[in-house]
Amino acid sequence: MTHLVAVGGSDAGISAALRARELDPATEVTVVVADRYPNFSICGIPYYFTGEVAPWQSLAHRTAADLEATGMRLRLDTRATRIDVAARTLAVRTADGVEEDVAYDELIVATGALPVRAGIAGLDALGPEQGVHVIHSMPDALALDRDLERRQPRSAVIVGAGYVGLEMAEAFTARGLRVTLLQRRPEVLSTLDRELGALVREELAAHGVQVVTDAAVRSVEHRPSGLRVVTDRASHDADLVLVVVGVRPNVELLERAGATLGAGGAVVVDASMRTGLPGVWAAGDGVVTHHRLLGETYLPLGTTAHKQGRIAGENAVGGTARFAGSVGTQVVKVFDLVAARTGLRDHEAVAAGLAPVTIASVADDHKRYYPGAHPIRFRVTGDPRDGRLLGAQLVGRRGTEVAKRVDVFATAIHAGLGVAQLSDLDLSYTPPLGSPWDAVQLAAQAWTGEAERMEGRTGIEPA
Amino acid sequence: MTHLVAVGGSDAGISAALRARELDPATEVTVVVADRYPNFSICGIPYYFTGEVAPWQSLAHRTAADLEATGMRLRLDTRATRIDVAARTLAVRTADGVEEDVAYDELIVATGALPVRAGIAGLDALGPEQGVHVIHSMPDALALDRDLERRQPRSAVIVGAGYVGLEMAEAFTARGLRVTLLQRRPEVLSTLDRELGALVREELAAHGVQVVTDAAVRSVEHRPSGLRVVTDRASHDADLVLVVVGVRPNVELLERAGATLGAGGAVVVDASMRTGLPGVWAAGDGVVTHHRLLGETYLPLGTTAHKQGRIAGENAVGGTARFAGSVGTQVVKVFDLVAARTGLRDHEAVAAGLAPVTIASVADDHKRYYPGAHPIRFRVTGDPRDGRLLGAQLVGRRGTEVAKRVDVFATAIHAGLGVAQLSDLDLSYTPPLGSPWDAVQLAAQAWTGEAERMEGRTGIEPA
Repeated sequence: MTHLVAVGGSDAGISAALRARELDPATEVTVVVADRYPNFSICGIPYYFTGEVAPWQSLAHRTAADLEATGMRLRLDTRATRIDVAARTLAVRTADGVEEDVAYDELIVATGALPVRAGIAGLDALGPEQGVHVIHSMPDALALDRDLERRQPRSAVIVGAGYVGLEMAEAFTARGLRVTLLQRRPEVLSTLDRELGALVREELAAHGVQVVTDAAVRSVEHRPSGLRVVTDRASHDADLVLVVVGVRPNVELLERAGATLGAGGAVVVDASMRTGLPGVWAAGDGVVTHHRLLGETYLPLGTTAHKQGRIAGENAVGGTARFAGSVGTQVVKVFDLVAARTGLRDHEAVAAGLAPVTIASVADDHKRYYPGAHPIRFRVTGDPRDGRLLGAQLVGRRGTEVAKRVDVFATAIHAGLGVAQLSDLDLSYTPPLGSPWDAVQLAAQAWTGEAERMEGRTGIEPA
Repeated sequence: MTHLVAVGGSDAGISAALRARELDPATEVTVVVADRYPNFSICGIPYYFTGEVAPWQSLAHRTAADLEATGMRLRLDTRATRIDVAARTLAVRTADGVEEDVAYDELIVATGALPVRAGIAGLDALGPEQGVHVIHSMPDALALDRDLERRQPRSAVIVGAGYVGLEMAEAFTARGLRVTLLQRRPEVLSTLDRELGALVREELAAHGVQVVTDAAVRSVEHRPSGLRVVTDRASHDADLVLVVVGVRPNVELLERAGATLGAGGAVVVDASMRTGLPGVWAAGDGVVTHHRLLGETYLPLGTTAHKQGRIAGENAVGGTARFAGSVGTQVVKVFDLVAARTGLRDHEAVAAGLAPVTIASVADDHKRYYPGAHPIRFRVTGDPRDGRLLGAQLVGRRGTEVAKRVDVFATAIHAGLGVAQLSDLDLSYTPPLGSPWDAVQLAAQAWTGEAERMEGRTGIEPA
């Protein structure tokens, strides 16, 4: 009987194990999980802190019992320490410190990513005990939860205004903390163009979050009076500090086994999720991301981890699945606003050798005569040389179906459609939910109209 | 100077005129409108009767002044009576009975559709004066409005449980009328499979609408005590009767000019919207619909009329636009439920020579741990021989983004993707708005899993 071992209990590892069990119930599957929280929705943690999700156990996509009911074996609180590729054994250490070699036929490494500290002084010596937190795993979340209960902090500084920083700013605000959000860049949510990031900043400010941009954090200090976060321009005192400035791939296990590192320092895998080491597959936030427009890059996302894990699991039991590639689709809800993007922005497209043009436009989510219509702000990116759709950014109020509208763009990019072809799409219409030309198509028409004007042509031949 | 004349003031005619003016401001554009309500949103009429839209004037996509500001000329209350193709003149008759010949260089006919009476006896002699209504135009809507005001009816029978019938059942209910909805077919909303139509019927019943299916209406009688609708099985009395049993293309003008009729009795046009008559284009509910999966058919929809009109307007001023084809996407809100479809259902695919399989599934609109998650019910249709996605039907509560999720399917069908490729799509995810595998992808995976089981293969090669 084949023994498949997966390392990692988050999206990629569990997806791989589930898929292998689904396709080949004869395969024995063991999942080695460093903590005791397999298959938790890490993306859901902020909603535990808003109070919308309770108890925290409901953040599990599936319980350990659910997982074991599929026939997989879970080894919780167990760390993988070394791969012997030639012997096909994985060395592990249990919580009790017991070392053991686990034999495998196929190994899937899904060790994910680790939070970075971005060179901020003082962090090495500070942790939950001092009120300084990261939030990358369930143990992190539970440590933060205990700290909030124990010390009842009244103020928080969040370092980093990316997705998690924004969501946690909302969560802390919902809990009654005064929140200061420090952002190194000129605008929050720097995965979007500044014009749209500014809308998100307004939403934060409207809910009482103090947003400080262009703030490079130098250090975090633990003082008798509390915590102090020092930037290049000011210092900010708070009872609690959350550092969410990004992640790096957790590659130690595979690197020591001889795997190659690529984009972003992540482990190189092919579209089948092969590492190149015999019998060793990898997936998730620790591996490079094939991007349909960029080629090999590093873009760790839960959606991608699920896909890659499923492919690795399928192929480890003899399948021939291939990762079709990311287009970088992301969405975040910030209070009552939803911001989304897919594909490339101008500077990303330029770096990829393209000649992008980005056009801003506004369109209502549904017919304005019907109650509750709200504008969606778009930025559509395309290449006027061939008309190809390269990317789209959308910001609108919650309820304007921004998340699924970005999915229409994502599907169109996946399929290689041109911007003008969006107007050909047969999209649904009823006045309470759309327009005869959907907002997506109006945004595309704004792009094609402007691109035609820029090119000095009208798109029609002389009569 | 070129003179472009468009006949018809609804979606196709106005879209054509707008596009022509946009592309070539040197073209003189005249739009001949049979009534005095150009560019009204006919799809929005039910929401005037619910009371959500007021005044009725706000149903105009654009006012007459907006339209004239683009440089087009509107001839309201003017009926086109005859086309002289050789002379390039259009005979018109004004409200005053004045007959006139209008010279044109290019003519776009967008006369739309007319309501049918489905052989129901008595309708010829009954109209708004007797409380018997259709609702296909603004004059129809205003006549119904006056009747509701004047007679204050307390009960209504609606004949036909398609989109308009369902929306008007909601509208009359909102106004406090007792509503009986008569449907000839075994289930309401027969554009969806019965399993999903049944959910819509439950929603109607939950809001007090009496739904009678398998009811073939024979006649409508005007009696001293009120109106009586007689079916093959019973009779239903009411103060008001609304007949919404479908439409037929309004082709008289073009047919007499020598145009060819095709599917559904509609005027044949090519992808450029040419009728084949020199200088005569046509678009909208009066012409055949090119369907990407079915070829030539008749499927009158406002979204299609907008597209065809825009293409006719572009080409009439020298453009080379082509209609890329419908995939039959439709959506309706019925009280708190949204029902949508795109592509083909089983029987439609069989008629087109395909070998479809339809698989039902259910998936939450977003992660269940986050408040407000609701199930979406899917029926996905594909052809197991090549895995091609053929269609999808979705029903979910309002707020579950069903309308934009059907658009993801519509985009995928447009692009010719396979069902399995839906799992490759990089769709957006955040717990309040989706899942790592979006509901759309889970529905696709339900199809592929079942198709694999039906084929007795697992989709993987032996290791």
